[in-house]
Amino acid sequence: MSLTRIYRELKRDLNEIEKGIEEAVTSDHPTLHQAGYELLKAGGKRIRPILVLLASHYGDKDDPAVKKAAITLELIHTASLVHDDVIDNAELRRGKPTVKAKWNNRVAMYAGDYIFAKAIDLMADIHDTYANQVVAKAMQEMSIGEIEQIKDQFNCHQNLRKYLLRIKRKTALLMAISCELGAVSAGASRSISRKLYYYGYFMGMSYQITDDILDFVGTEKQLGKPAGSDLKQGNITLPTLMAFRHSDIKEAVMLTLQLDNPSQKDFDHIINLIKQSGAIEVSQEVSTQYLNKAYRVLNDLPNNSATRSFKEIADYIGTRKY
Amino acid sequence: MSLTRIYRELKRDLNEIEKGIEEAVTSDHPTLHQAGYELLKAGGKRIRPILVLLASHYGDKDDPAVKKAAITLELIHTASLVHDDVIDNAELRRGKPTVKAKWNNRVAMYAGDYIFAKAIDLMADIHDTYANQVVAKAMQEMSIGEIEQIKDQFNCHQNLRKYLLRIKRKTALLMAISCELGAVSAGASRSISRKLYYYGYFMGMSYQITDDILDFVGTEKQLGKPAGSDLKQGNITLPTLMAFRHSDIKEAVMLTLQLDNPSQKDFDHIINLIKQSGAIEVSQEVSTQYLNKAYRVLNDLPNNSATRSFKEIADYIGTRKY
Repeated sequence: MSLTRIYRELKRDLNEIEKGIEEAVTSDHPTLHQAGYELLKAGGKRIRPILVLLASHYGDKDDPAVKKAAITLELIHTASLVHDDVIDNAELRRGKPTVKAKWNNRVAMYAGDYIFAKAIDLMADIHDTYANQVVAKAMQEMSIGEIEQIKDQFNCHQNLRKYLLRIKRKTALLMAISCELGAVSAGASRSISRKLYYYGYFMGMSYQITDDILDFVGTEKQLGKPAGSDLKQGNITLPTLMAFRHSDIKEAVMLTLQLDNPSQKDFDHIINLIKQSGAIEVSQEVSTQYLNKAYRVLNDLPNNSATRSFKEIADYIGTRKY
Repeated sequence: MSLTRIYRELKRDLNEIEKGIEEAVTSDHPTLHQAGYELLKAGGKRIRPILVLLASHYGDKDDPAVKKAAITLELIHTASLVHDDVIDNAELRRGKPTVKAKWNNRVAMYAGDYIFAKAIDLMADIHDTYANQVVAKAMQEMSIGEIEQIKDQFNCHQNLRKYLLRIKRKTALLMAISCELGAVSAGASRSISRKLYYYGYFMGMSYQITDDILDFVGTEKQLGKPAGSDLKQGNITLPTLMAFRHSDIKEAVMLTLQLDNPSQKDFDHIINLIKQSGAIEVSQEVSTQYLNKAYRVLNDLPNNSATRSFKEIADYIGTRKY
């Protein structure tokens, strides 16, 4: 299962969107131009533009507002990735901040601000107050989600509800509004755009849960980072939460996270406990439930090529390995 | 000269705006509520809401869009202050980043993002694409200005044009659009709103130049920080640039800024060189020229109470000592 067919089908539109993103990030200013390449690389699979484009097929997909919405949503995603990288990487890994690290971090923060502002600028051009407010509200939720994640790092006393709200804010919401605003910008009906919102939401939840599972079961090569990175950084995701149902595992994890300088061996131990507890399978089940909800929404939509593509995306998420 | 009369005149409106700002910053979320007090304190004189309110007097000042614009612009100012504080304070003064400092910095970054998004949300409610894009474009310019400032820290080879562009982006632009959007949101004519933009721009340039002068000539008590802080942080402002016309001073400043760990005595020496060079007086002259341009714009506006208040603000800036 892959998204190759969809990429091929949308190739022309995606190329235009790619150009728009590049222009937005690199054109106006020499420093941003320098930083641009890094920022662009941060983008990745362009899933949000794909969702916008597919959702636009339920209305007038050639409305110029559609591409603006696609670029806007990818820019917001990019800006949030840029802000996620601030401080985390450059500064603390070296143990001590260097002027260079400080410079990079501050520049990255303002580069993120710039991209957010650029996204809003573009969005305002759609002349749709509802769409603008949906984007602004999503940005608020995403910021709150990041603050919550920071606050809940290393906090082993959180419940499922908190985790689900966090991944909604982190991932599912932006996918949901990508679907919704793709439809809105193409002038599709309110009923269709709401359904697409829910498709994006359920699909995004499943997507993020899969991500969180893969962080445990993927190989370093597949993930591009060592397995178990989430837990090491103190991020308590679904597999860990599900393993906490065994009080001995919860105790072992808490003890390790409280250590001053836990070793790789310490982490390997608790990661294995979690993997062997059945928590991965339970997490997969939760992911599947969300995916099933996404499929059910699709059954309620006209059986056209866009709906079929949305089904393919759900299939892809249900089977993806990295 | 003070702004007391204007504050008194606008008291009722300013109180409402204060409430709006407080709500935006503190209402939705416990963490933001905790951080709220600090964020609110960052606000200060509420000059931007005053500009919006006064400018609204050239149209229907009771249009609900006016207060939304006032809150939006103050929120953008607040968010930019919050981002300015990231990394600068908590982290580097202690020489080494603590987890606590890191936590605070990341939370502050996302709190700033949240406030930006909240501002945009509120602004979208005005249903005026032009106003929304003006705000989004100003945010882009402000971000670029911050990046430029970071890049030009300790750079002694910059010209006047660069400095003026930087303070435009840092200060004057937001004041200019506060005036402009106050008029726009009240439905004033395009001709009036453009004139007010230029008043705000010229006044804002003079305001920032005065700030930069006071950093040299003010006392620690007046400034709330040691005199000469700008230069110590490597920010080359107008008095330093003007003193650079004397090549021996430029050389002395460059030498000091290149030292690994310059002492207070080293700084006192170059600050005195700058103060005795006549650069303060030349800078004051530049500030006065901008202020005169601001007065000339006001002569072109109807002679009403708002115009008189704008004159008072210019008078205040021309005489302010801290």
